[in-house]
Amino acid sequence: MWAITLTEYGGPEQMTWAEVPDPEPGPGEVVLDIVSSAVNRADLLQVQGNYPVPPGASEILGLECAGRIAALGAGVTGWSVGDEVCALLAGGGYATKVAVPAPQLLPVPAGVSLEEAGGLPEVACTVWSNVFLEGRLAEGETFLVQGGSSGIGTHAIQVAKALGARVAATAGHADRLQFCRDLGADIVIDYHDDIAEELKKATDGHGADVILDNMGAKGLANNLSALARDGRLMIIGMQGGVKAELNIGALLAKRGHVSAMGLRGRPVDGPHSKAEIVDGVRENVWPLFADGRVKPVVFERFAMSDAADAHRRLDAGGVTGKLLLVNS
Amino acid sequence: MWAITLTEYGGPEQMTWAEVPDPEPGPGEVVLDIVSSAVNRADLLQVQGNYPVPPGASEILGLECAGRIAALGAGVTGWSVGDEVCALLAGGGYATKVAVPAPQLLPVPAGVSLEEAGGLPEVACTVWSNVFLEGRLAEGETFLVQGGSSGIGTHAIQVAKALGARVAATAGHADRLQFCRDLGADIVIDYHDDIAEELKKATDGHGADVILDNMGAKGLANNLSALARDGRLMIIGMQGGVKAELNIGALLAKRGHVSAMGLRGRPVDGPHSKAEIVDGVRENVWPLFADGRVKPVVFERFAMSDAADAHRRLDAGGVTGKLLLVNS
Repeated sequence: MWAITLTEYGGPEQMTWAEVPDPEPGPGEVVLDIVSSAVNRADLLQVQGNYPVPPGASEILGLECAGRIAALGAGVTGWSVGDEVCALLAGGGYATKVAVPAPQLLPVPAGVSLEEAGGLPEVACTVWSNVFLEGRLAEGETFLVQGGSSGIGTHAIQVAKALGARVAATAGHADRLQFCRDLGADIVIDYHDDIAEELKKATDGHGADVILDNMGAKGLANNLSALARDGRLMIIGMQGGVKAELNIGALLAKRGHVSAMGLRGRPVDGPHSKAEIVDGVRENVWPLFADGRVKPVVFERFAMSDAADAHRRLDAGGVTGKLLLVNS
Repeated sequence: MWAITLTEYGGPEQMTWAEVPDPEPGPGEVVLDIVSSAVNRADLLQVQGNYPVPPGASEILGLECAGRIAALGAGVTGWSVGDEVCALLAGGGYATKVAVPAPQLLPVPAGVSLEEAGGLPEVACTVWSNVFLEGRLAEGETFLVQGGSSGIGTHAIQVAKALGARVAATAGHADRLQFCRDLGADIVIDYHDDIAEELKKATDGHGADVILDNMGAKGLANNLSALARDGRLMIIGMQGGVKAELNIGALLAKRGHVSAMGLRGRPVDGPHSKAEIVDGVRENVWPLFADGRVKPVVFERFAMSDAADAHRRLDAGGVTGKLLLVNS
């Protein structure tokens, strides 16, 4: 098969399309012929050498894909060769084939093309696990998503809105704020302003019951200020740094919760597993695509072999939605 | 009635036993003739002026009590005048009478005297809400309680052990470490050592699925190091300071959670309420007293009018269990 390989850590110039050995399906795994994958910030970090591959996972980039089942490993039931699926991956998506544990497979949601589905598993599983499974966002509660026009943000706005939350989203430009509004955000906030203050103004002082944050250190104090009583701050990215002062007194005054969780290092099965999250997505999020309340948001398509260009595009900023990588 | 009153903020010398107006039961409240109350660290902070009384709560010290129902307010059902009960209070326990919302009442657990029951509601509700309701400690998981010989600690060790956890406890002296062992702790750690390192040694590198912490800032980094994957750090005290550096990268690597929650400011009813917690305690914790698996741990009794001496005693250190305040 063919895949994007890394000569050494560095920038996109290290990403080369090359022939590599085919994957074999281990017990409980399937092999997919990949139709599409998509770019996540974790892939950019991995190229830089700042995102260690979990033990046992593929060294190849790519945390999600869509494709057709080409082979079944021992013990796989419920799926057949030829099935069109998408999958949450621990790696290996930037390729023409990938081996993936069957519990990480999802059907293609109704109303979504197979190609578009390659950009859904990572955002859907991230939003479901953080905002709903752990963050327990409830109908009528207020949800703030930082970076509302990102791949994660565009999905989070739609799902939270569809499930009955009041949705606030931040972005850094008038066009992207309007984009968030068009996706369903009730409140939009320019992140150059004081986000906590603007959110409180817009919610009669209530703040956010759940915050999905991609900034990490830089946003911590303002996020704590934006939290409602009993609020849950879910940190999924550290674009604003790793270390920040935590005011535990402020957290206690809110009865607040701060979590930082990723998907990639989770076990396939059992408690806190990928399977648990994938099942939740299939049951709770996929039906929202069928009736059109949630749609994939694709910003641009690149040939899989040109993945380096897609990385450059994401790094340049201003991307609203997902960058797809498509095999020809 | 009589109560401990504060002339001004300061030390125990400001605490005076004085006659004050009787409380009246509002709608949904009962008035109790108090038999006993108990000292919590929050009371010491309140005397210092470092623990603001929530709006609407009694200015009188005391967050828990036991006694007999003397009067029922409008709309109270399920309780009768003369019933022996204990209660979680938003304040008012250092007195001879108190008005309390009926949802904050608990029966006296089987096998516990009415007097001893006055030292249970605060520890039981704190441990239940943090370790079980929010922290979701499960059978077979590892639980670390910092300050294992404290009022909270002695209760937490027993309940976690009774509900099937592996229990680790810290203390600062050989006698108190043995005391924790006698209460059921599987692992005891001198807090002068590196707690995270000692815990990992004792658990084959696993660490703690749930940590109940009373130190706040001072313990934050070591607690994060001691957390297991998917671990939950529950901060209930800040004896080691308020502000600390949070390494979000370290939290993310653990898929970790940090919460800081109190009881006093919670609403009586509804989501995240005192009623929700009191109901959970009655259903899940009270039966553990009936069969002797959990016992009250009383260190010393003081006359209610001598509450200042009890404050001095707690402040002096080395108290294992609760200090009761008893009306004559």
